[in-house]
Amino acid sequence: MKKNYLFSPGPTPVPPEVSLAMAQPILHHRTNQFTEVFEEAREGLKYVFQTERDVLILASSGTGAMEAAVANLFSPGEKAVCVRGGKFGERWAEICESYGVVPVNIDVEWGEAVKVEDVAKALDENPDVKAVLWQASETSTGVKHPTEELAALCRERGVLSVVDGITAVGVFDVKTDDWGLDVVVSGSQKAFMLPPGLAFITLSERAWEAAEGSKCPRYYFDLKKELKNQQKGQTAYTPAVSLIIGLRESLKLIKDEGLENVFKRHALLARATREAMKAIGLELFSKSPSEAVTAVKVPPGIDGAKIPKLLRDKYGVVIAGGQAKLKGKIFRLSHMGYVTRFDMVLAISAVEGILKELGYSFELGAGVKRAQEILWEE
Amino acid sequence: MKKNYLFSPGPTPVPPEVSLAMAQPILHHRTNQFTEVFEEAREGLKYVFQTERDVLILASSGTGAMEAAVANLFSPGEKAVCVRGGKFGERWAEICESYGVVPVNIDVEWGEAVKVEDVAKALDENPDVKAVLWQASETSTGVKHPTEELAALCRERGVLSVVDGITAVGVFDVKTDDWGLDVVVSGSQKAFMLPPGLAFITLSERAWEAAEGSKCPRYYFDLKKELKNQQKGQTAYTPAVSLIIGLRESLKLIKDEGLENVFKRHALLARATREAMKAIGLELFSKSPSEAVTAVKVPPGIDGAKIPKLLRDKYGVVIAGGQAKLKGKIFRLSHMGYVTRFDMVLAISAVEGILKELGYSFELGAGVKRAQEILWEE
Repeated sequence: MKKNYLFSPGPTPVPPEVSLAMAQPILHHRTNQFTEVFEEAREGLKYVFQTERDVLILASSGTGAMEAAVANLFSPGEKAVCVRGGKFGERWAEICESYGVVPVNIDVEWGEAVKVEDVAKALDENPDVKAVLWQASETSTGVKHPTEELAALCRERGVLSVVDGITAVGVFDVKTDDWGLDVVVSGSQKAFMLPPGLAFITLSERAWEAAEGSKCPRYYFDLKKELKNQQKGQTAYTPAVSLIIGLRESLKLIKDEGLENVFKRHALLARATREAMKAIGLELFSKSPSEAVTAVKVPPGIDGAKIPKLLRDKYGVVIAGGQAKLKGKIFRLSHMGYVTRFDMVLAISAVEGILKELGYSFELGAGVKRAQEILWEE
Repeated sequence: MKKNYLFSPGPTPVPPEVSLAMAQPILHHRTNQFTEVFEEAREGLKYVFQTERDVLILASSGTGAMEAAVANLFSPGEKAVCVRGGKFGERWAEICESYGVVPVNIDVEWGEAVKVEDVAKALDENPDVKAVLWQASETSTGVKHPTEELAALCRERGVLSVVDGITAVGVFDVKTDDWGLDVVVSGSQKAFMLPPGLAFITLSERAWEAAEGSKCPRYYFDLKKELKNQQKGQTAYTPAVSLIIGLRESLKLIKDEGLENVFKRHALLARATREAMKAIGLELFSKSPSEAVTAVKVPPGIDGAKIPKLLRDKYGVVIAGGQAKLKGKIFRLSHMGYVTRFDMVLAISAVEGILKELGYSFELGAGVKRAQEILWEE
């Protein structure tokens, strides 16, 4: 008998009450019944994004909302500082290039967080930069960039802060309003505990002003049109109705637990996972670890590609390997969303099991024991 | 007690086996398990699109795929003939304008099908046109445009045929390969019996060649990148996993019934609905009715906005009203997807009931009777 367990950094497990809500007969979107669901979801998103602003709901993956940010803020020829410290940082630069926006790239060693002074220097050298684009949590490396500090720098310099919060919003503290973040993007399949297919984006007054002057083409991702519609409880184009019904449910779960408690849970699970990996002699890849996902270096002599593959095929435990140039070099364990202490014990025991099978030498049980000590500390 | 019944032209009802499939624990998309589902769905789509070509799956509403067609085929300054015979015809022209593509509009009286000679004339007058864009079924008016004939004209003139098949593919015969359609677009929430959130698009060799030279910006909707990924059983960005799992199920249902039988069923339900409406003295809005949706004129003296509103609020029966300039002037009954004879009897009886309440004078039961005669003919 094999059961399936999901510890990938998206999609994350969907709570059964959310799955059941989405399995209800479908609603027509041009009805009061849908508008009611939609309004509740919009309110719940404001709570999780820690903002009074509208949070727009798009039918796309998170990348769609990243593109929406670029296509709505810039005009071709304008400059954007892109923090490239992983696959998703590179994506910001690629999207800019697609639209003729000139990326000023800050290439950060993968596994490290960007230094605020490096961004300041890039802004010094390029006074015509319009915005800084970064990841609050770089999923490919498990790194947390210093979002609060970068936001302060952007405000000081009068440039827009554009944050990919796809594995950050609802995972750890991202204070959209208090930190003055101009654009924050997220997606449904991470802390929101939903299947993929929804993206979220919120813009500040300054960002909306920039959008007024933007000359990039867009239609499906025309945020001004979306804002006008969503403020009336509708979307510009047919919304992903079933996912929005699920969103209302998952937002209720987050509200019931309380955002602070959700953050604490993620932080605890992340710390336990990191310490467990260290206890079995492994090295963490990230120097500034994100509470979303723990990236671990594959120990010497072990075929890194085999770890996620065997875990999945033999045990039904899905974790992520490395992406792009990290392929075979790291593995990644997610602890965001619908994950408890017991789930992490399970995940860590699975990693221990597979490492044992692959011939890695360590004391079996040492990782789980260390995790238990931390998880039951409080 | 009130039950809900859905007769809107999208979303359409979702079969329970499809809902249950989508309620299964979520899969990670970078696994063989997902690739297997994805490949089956891709094969099933080819069957419904009647093509040997790849049919790409996008995480967006149908409008996203319409935009993808424009952004991938054209360069700014190029010309496209747009058949504007309703809200969705206008959308083609709007998308073109967003990308600096010059629309040559053929304004068709709403409720009528475009005349092939009018398109021929537009092509005569604009020999530099690159493509003709139209709806196989214009959902806002219930009109079927002559797709086979228009495709033949496009081939003869060496221009690309770009067809919005959102309420056509899987509803009635659209022979992508046999008719030589260059681009066909569809969406999940119509004949595919799924919630909204997936769009489909297929391109001919000629269309892929045009895409090679296209200079419009795109990233999320970069079809060449999608093709490369989807041929390997993956998507460029995180796919809407649960909807694709549902898609595999709904495609199985279509395959089991047989495409020809699905078309026959839709045609029968559509004919019965039209004749029922006539039997109670109502006039059809469309001069070239689509088998997807029947558009009916609101009789004089009746407040048209009240028909869908009361049907929904009092009876739980969801039909559509008119859109844009047709608001209050027509109502629309869908018979596509997961709809049986008995469902249409129910819908027609509900329309009769509400018209009686609103004071319209007719013989109660005459519509249902006429529908029954047709539905049980065969």
